[in-house]
Amino acid sequence: MTTFEPTNPTYEERVRSSFALQTAMKTLGVEIAAMQPGAIELTMKRDPAFTQQHGFVHAGIVATALDSACGYAAFTLFPAEAEVLTVELKLNLLAPAKGDSFVFRAQVVKPGRTLTFCEGRALARDASGTEKLIATMSGTMMALVDRPGIQQGVSPRAR
Amino acid sequence: MTTFEPTNPTYEERVRSSFALQTAMKTLGVEIAAMQPGAIELTMKRDPAFTQQHGFVHAGIVATALDSACGYAAFTLFPAEAEVLTVELKLNLLAPAKGDSFVFRAQVVKPGRTLTFCEGRALARDASGTEKLIATMSGTMMALVDRPGIQQGVSPRAR
Amino acid sequence: MTTFEPTNPTYEERVRSSFALQTAMKTLGVEIAAMQPGAIELTMKRDPAFTQQHGFVHAGIVATALDSACGYAAFTLFPAEAEVLTVELKLNLLAPAKGDSFVFRAQVVKPGRTLTFCEGRALARDASGTEKLIATMSGTMMALVDRPGIQQGVSPRAR
Amino acid sequence: MTTFEPTNPTYEERVRSSFALQTAMKTLGVEIAAMQPGAIELTMKRDPAFTQQHGFVHAGIVATALDSACGYAAFTLFPAEAEVLTVELKLNLLAPAKGDSFVFRAQVVKPGRTLTFCEGRALARDASGTEKLIATMSGTMMALVDRPGIQQGVSPRAR
Repeated sequence: MTTFEPTNPTYEERVRSSFALQTAMKTLGVEIAAMQPGAIELTMKRDPAFTQQHGFVHAGIVATALDSACGYAAFTLFPAEAEVLTVELKLNLLAPAKGDSFVFRAQVVKPGRTLTFCEGRALARDASGTEKLIATMSGTMMALVDRPGIQQGVSPRAR
Repeated sequence: MTTFEPTNPTYEERVRSSFALQTAMKTLGVEIAAMQPGAIELTMKRDPAFTQQHGFVHAGIVATALDSACGYAAFTLFPAEAEVLTVELKLNLLAPAKGDSFVFRAQVVKPGRTLTFCEGRALARDASGTEKLIATMSGTMMALVDRPGIQQGVSPRAR
Repeated sequence: MTTFEPTNPTYEERVRSSFALQTAMKTLGVEIAAMQPGAIELTMKRDPAFTQQHGFVHAGIVATALDSACGYAAFTLFPAEAEVLTVELKLNLLAPAKGDSFVFRAQVVKPGRTLTFCEGRALARDASGTEKLIATMSGTMMALVDRPGIQQGVSPRAR
Repeated sequence: MTTFEPTNPTYEERVRSSFALQTAMKTLGVEIAAMQPGAIELTMKRDPAFTQQHGFVHAGIVATALDSACGYAAFTLFPAEAEVLTVELKLNLLAPAKGDSFVFRAQVVKPGRTLTFCEGRALARDASGTEKLIATMSGTMMALVDRPGIQQGVSPRAR
């Protein structure tokens, strides 16, 4: 894994503050397990409230956790005044999301002033702790600077 | 929109039964608004439990509803004995998911015996009923026949 | 199809000049068939020099023409001083690229100051003129302003 | 990198035979540099015939080589009687394709009876041999068995 130099020395605090504001993460039971410049690991326990018709975790919920993982992996490298938004993501589903808990690992592949490209992997853990790859994500994250509307609910592109 | 001939005359009942088993849809408040062979429309009210750090609906939640929409659009055309799984999906986010409610429209572009390609669009509705495009999805859905393990939580590819 | 207002009144001339610089288009035999603000149509005759192992046009060649189509659809709406680069593209292949000629239609779905989202469709035409959908593309295009290095072969992100 | 067991002991010969039939590879100057079960490396010299408007190699040409790389990485693991077709691919462009030559590395992430998921990376090499990551691909490859029409130019999904 490439090592990156964070532009914001207090990146960890900033990621945790932003993550804490993602109500969706709390609702889904997603937590930060580890973090370093350009990479993050999230975990989630299986919750029957978020399953699909076969009893597996819904692919979209896997996408939700991986999207946050990619976004915050990028965010660790952003300057202190920048916000992060997802431009696009692609999810390939490799096995049903069957497990007791799930791990979501994301890392920055290519940082940039405006766009940062990240990759993520979702793994299912069974009771014995064995991990199995269930999904991969590739996504483009955007740094937004001086767009106060973002916090106030105004689309930056609509201005 | 292309019109398709369903192979299963009771497709609507089958879609509703399967959708009712998606606990995630109930938890997110996603409902079926309309359906026809090869197409479906889902709706969702804004729920603060599923927002991201700026107060908008989390991109992954938009992905979750669009994934179900694409999957069930494909499912309307499947034979009675086939199950549906998502192979891959790509989401492009065009505007923040800001609105009172959301509409998710998906349709089959190319049906196939094994793989069916679908496209979906997510729109935000404000209080006046005005709709704004916020995201698009393209996704590949797979028909699984004679894979009893799917219902029992066994990965079809792991066998 | 949505109608867009071009910011550059001489957009057509600018698209044609840039397209003429794409040696790859000339080599592949891709030509501009039609253009309007936010949309473009390209055509290509089948050339056995660009086929894959089954004698169909290589999927990557379809991607090449669709990428140019998406890029120039976006470019029609760009200000006069902006360059265009592809950020990402996704291609879904729906049928083998078998035909006498091919049509590539792309249109802007969501224009933006920095990023413009486009969709494209590739169709195969047989001898009778019947068109068949063979591939779809979704892609994000980026407007680059004041990045002279682009023309001189310097990566804008490497600076 | 995961090691895979090929189901076809003569996979290398089979890959080379199929690759030799891809006229597009010959036209673009793409060659096989290395191969092992589940992975392949292709190389290509810069050819001004395939550049875009800024003089870099066209993104679609990068996509073409990466698509072949992903396809043949999957093909190394296919049974002797199966053909390979690309279902979908996504390309993220991280830097302009500027270099004297290019390397395309692809590997299987998840093999399957019907679908195989692969990832690929394109690198530009300058005169000193330094490599720079310019693009990533993720793609789904499909194994087709008993579909003689593929070789004869008949769409398998059209039957």
